[in-house]
Amino acid sequence: MAPMTPVPASASHVEMTQLVMPSHANSHGTAFGGTVMAWTDLAAGMAAMRHARLPVVTASIDQLVFRSPVRIGQIALIRAQVNAVFATSMEVGVVVLTEEPLSGEQHLCCEAFLTFVALGPDQHPRPVAPLLVETELERQRQREAGTRRAARLELREASKGK
Amino acid sequence: MAPMTPVPASASHVEMTQLVMPSHANSHGTAFGGTVMAWTDLAAGMAAMRHARLPVVTASIDQLVFRSPVRIGQIALIRAQVNAVFATSMEVGVVVLTEEPLSGEQHLCCEAFLTFVALGPDQHPRPVAPLLVETELERQRQREAGTRRAARLELREASKGK
Amino acid sequence: MAPMTPVPASASHVEMTQLVMPSHANSHGTAFGGTVMAWTDLAAGMAAMRHARLPVVTASIDQLVFRSPVRIGQIALIRAQVNAVFATSMEVGVVVLTEEPLSGEQHLCCEAFLTFVALGPDQHPRPVAPLLVETELERQRQREAGTRRAARLELREASKGK
Amino acid sequence: MAPMTPVPASASHVEMTQLVMPSHANSHGTAFGGTVMAWTDLAAGMAAMRHARLPVVTASIDQLVFRSPVRIGQIALIRAQVNAVFATSMEVGVVVLTEEPLSGEQHLCCEAFLTFVALGPDQHPRPVAPLLVETELERQRQREAGTRRAARLELREASKGK
Amino acid sequence: MAPMTPVPASASHVEMTQLVMPSHANSHGTAFGGTVMAWTDLAAGMAAMRHARLPVVTASIDQLVFRSPVRIGQIALIRAQVNAVFATSMEVGVVVLTEEPLSGEQHLCCEAFLTFVALGPDQHPRPVAPLLVETELERQRQREAGTRRAARLELREASKGK
Amino acid sequence: MAPMTPVPASASHVEMTQLVMPSHANSHGTAFGGTVMAWTDLAAGMAAMRHARLPVVTASIDQLVFRSPVRIGQIALIRAQVNAVFATSMEVGVVVLTEEPLSGEQHLCCEAFLTFVALGPDQHPRPVAPLLVETELERQRQREAGTRRAARLELREASKGK
Repeated sequence: MAPMTPVPASASHVEMTQLVMPSHANSHGTAFGGTVMAWTDLAAGMAAMRHARLPVVTASIDQLVFRSPVRIGQIALIRAQVNAVFATSMEVGVVVLTEEPLSGEQHLCCEAFLTFVALGPDQHPRPVAPLLVETELERQRQREAGTRRAARLELREASKGK
Repeated sequence: MAPMTPVPASASHVEMTQLVMPSHANSHGTAFGGTVMAWTDLAAGMAAMRHARLPVVTASIDQLVFRSPVRIGQIALIRAQVNAVFATSMEVGVVVLTEEPLSGEQHLCCEAFLTFVALGPDQHPRPVAPLLVETELERQRQREAGTRRAARLELREASKGK
Repeated sequence: MAPMTPVPASASHVEMTQLVMPSHANSHGTAFGGTVMAWTDLAAGMAAMRHARLPVVTASIDQLVFRSPVRIGQIALIRAQVNAVFATSMEVGVVVLTEEPLSGEQHLCCEAFLTFVALGPDQHPRPVAPLLVETELERQRQREAGTRRAARLELREASKGK
Repeated sequence: MAPMTPVPASASHVEMTQLVMPSHANSHGTAFGGTVMAWTDLAAGMAAMRHARLPVVTASIDQLVFRSPVRIGQIALIRAQVNAVFATSMEVGVVVLTEEPLSGEQHLCCEAFLTFVALGPDQHPRPVAPLLVETELERQRQREAGTRRAARLELREASKGK
Repeated sequence: MAPMTPVPASASHVEMTQLVMPSHANSHGTAFGGTVMAWTDLAAGMAAMRHARLPVVTASIDQLVFRSPVRIGQIALIRAQVNAVFATSMEVGVVVLTEEPLSGEQHLCCEAFLTFVALGPDQHPRPVAPLLVETELERQRQREAGTRRAARLELREASKGK
Repeated sequence: MAPMTPVPASASHVEMTQLVMPSHANSHGTAFGGTVMAWTDLAAGMAAMRHARLPVVTASIDQLVFRSPVRIGQIALIRAQVNAVFATSMEVGVVVLTEEPLSGEQHLCCEAFLTFVALGPDQHPRPVAPLLVETELERQRQREAGTRRAARLELREASKGK
């Protein structure tokens, strides 16, 4: 198989916009955590598909941190982009912002890193195109994805030792 | 009340991205029309709120045309922007594109024009800021919104005459 | 193919009744516009299927006007009937009424006209039986459907000219 | 409190029509039993509200029998009407029919009897208007509701005795 | 076909836990009856599948009684177990408890008895393994299931006589 | 404030059982990742509430790993229990198993660790009761939760240094 042409990180960018409805709420009047997680997974999955142009499956959420709640009636902006490509997996970074519709003021609600695997016709993992990082921010995200991956592997080794 | 500062049409732009899931399907394996309509209404409503920075309600769908079906597994891109501002209403234009995830190829699925009204604290319609159109395309959309409105008013007069 | 026997307009009549639940709400405590649109599309689609006795797809919403909001706890009545049959399409009229459950009082919430196309086994549009209009009201609806269609075609020609 | 004027049974009649969608399905490709039960409860609750013109709550399902499955793509017709009024409760009868959209053929899918209680402003059960039965069928339903109620009370006594 | 080995009643036990969300609510702020019925049917169906290890369909709800409402924010516990096995059917008993999350206090919300039928590859009812009842409570449930069934058959005969 | 009495880890145990329905599916015919995440968050949140007996909010998903897909028609078992209590937060461990209904065979589908914070009436984080670990497995989970937390804090420090 000929080496694949690198794909720019920005080509995987996904922007979702959601109006937060009562059906998304928990009993505190804010969006149920699981709703935000589902949006995060969808946006990240579409970013991974846009990079790989193959069916993808979520392998893991490596981190998902809630910074502030999402309130009913707010607009949620979910942005996802591929941060790094490894042997048979991709790290996708996601941020969720909330926008107060009457003022336009935005807040960071949630940051997440997820790993996806692309599948070939045999349903087995399949290598994807290398990532072309073009900006300083993209280079930093790629580096940090590597650091997170190394930390995960180390932690996994540590638990095996026990 | 001092005259309001015009707001650029582009400031109201909304981009939604949806992965089309089996729960969106009708029994033909394509997205149920009502699902696409609901996405259209949500995207248009957020564009109207971004222009007005007030609560808004849908007054009417003036036209919504399906050009091609949305299939399960595709990505749907829903884009909305305010086209024109009238005395107490706004016309919002929406296009829905479908993206074939394995090729990136995009098709026009649906075009729609909706009218929204902004509400003041008394729940009555309230004037909103004038629209600043900045490109030729935006000027064309504003003109066509006026033509559609005139045609609607004429049709309404015609039915009264009967 | 032998000419098809006309089908009475009343044979396509559909009545849906929905209790408006919190899961249908927007953040104003009234039914989200997209929910009412989805009910409208479903009722109209079933009316078109009852006339054509073929699979149908929504071609367009030609007009959908909200007259008053639908509140949580109300009963929504959605009534649809085929208004007119054209070469390969049908116009369906829909009204949505709201019923106050404690008094029985009813209000007009929404009026809509949608166009559906029936599909043959080859997934292409297929002619449907002529419409038999039997009452003065049905005749008026058929005439007005023709007027709306002519106005749409004229508007489309006008935009092409530009 | 003056005696209440009897209300005709037919005034409580409710007709719901639902297009059976993939999101209603179980993994056999037929409508999930819980979906049909929810439609039954909604239709019966609206019939009870139309009789009582008061908020109502479901007290019990006394019997709900599935006669044939509801398939994806069919039209489901849910019809409910108050059968009998007791001291502080109402029995509502519900039938669910399925209609094959391509032929119009209808089948009985489900029959159910539910008991509802109307609530006063104090959230306690409150007597409702007597039922005016006007046809032989309505009289038969009222008689059978009484028989079912007697059988339930007897069965309850029998279990207490154990 | 060799006689089947009896299966202990406890092997069919199912425990579901649900956080009651605003999307489950009716307009009184309590869980919509249809939601509780759907949970009941799901839990009972899984118990029947665990006994039969075959696909099952709901044949009937023989009784479902609401004892107290389920409020938004509470935890609902749904417990189901096979009570008795007849020629080609199984009675499953279900209780729904509500747990007040801040105190842990539990209340009985709903009791139900449902009948399921297991299906063979030909989609026809198929005998299932006999039930092995091991505790006094299980023996009592089995006896009462028989009493309920006899009462139902008697009531059915009585209506035929009319 | 008097020191709080330790609460056994097992008192927070939650078991959810879900029948995997077509409405949970992605376009590969397996459960959509976001659905499994939402179940995980719900089960973990109920475990945290059972320990704290206070309202709780999800602070983070520290890790969520998919081991195998969840197929439509399978039973999903979601089990959650508090692993460790820190100053103002709790780590909850969740496993999702899938059960093949026709054989009873179970597979590990997903493992996750989430952090929750309990809120006082002022909506600020509030200390919760210490955790009483009673078995070797619970002690191991508590130790590993500490290791994961130390690794997270270290990684966070490392990114600040950049």
